[in-house]
Amino acid sequence: MDVLKVSSKSNPNAVAGALAGAIREKGIAEVQAVGAAAVNQAIKAIAITRGFVAPNGIDIITVPAFSSISIDGEERTAIKFLVEPR
Amino acid sequence: MDVLKVSSKSNPNAVAGALAGAIREKGIAEVQAVGAAAVNQAIKAIAITRGFVAPNGIDIITVPAFSSISIDGEERTAIKFLVEPR
Repeated sequence: MDVLKVSSKSNPNAVAGALAGAIREKGIAEVQAVGAAAVNQAIKAIAITRGFVAPNGIDIITVPAFSSISIDGEERTAIKFLVEPR
Repeated sequence: MDVLKVSSKSNPNAVAGALAGAIREKGIAEVQAVGAAAVNQAIKAIAITRGFVAPNGIDIITVPAFSSISIDGEERTAIKFLVEPR
């Protein structure tokens, strides 16, 4: 499964394009975000992706979960979003 | 359908409790958030809610969407999350 890392500086439209491609190809993708600004960009990207894949007859939903990741040796809590067809 | 308005100061655990109650009672709920910090609290609340309703055999998913709302006469873009069983 493709894991897309989204930051506060990510462009939601660009992330949505990559996400739509991953979903069309593999049926499921994961988006990872650390921090409020990154989570906000991730959610915008997922909302935009819905419009990108709707013409393919795909109605996507997301499942958010907490995830522990290590950044520069420091433990951080990320939000991971599984994005998949309903 | 119950609409829960989440702000940057909302306690994700408290929101999750209300959300779990609404889902158990009505099967579906909506969460509304304006701004990155509020969206982050909303997503944490939805992730926590998954754990609250899982013992009831409910596996929830969310569908994020953009929504135009009026705050003090000003047009703002909110994110609304439909939260429902898979």
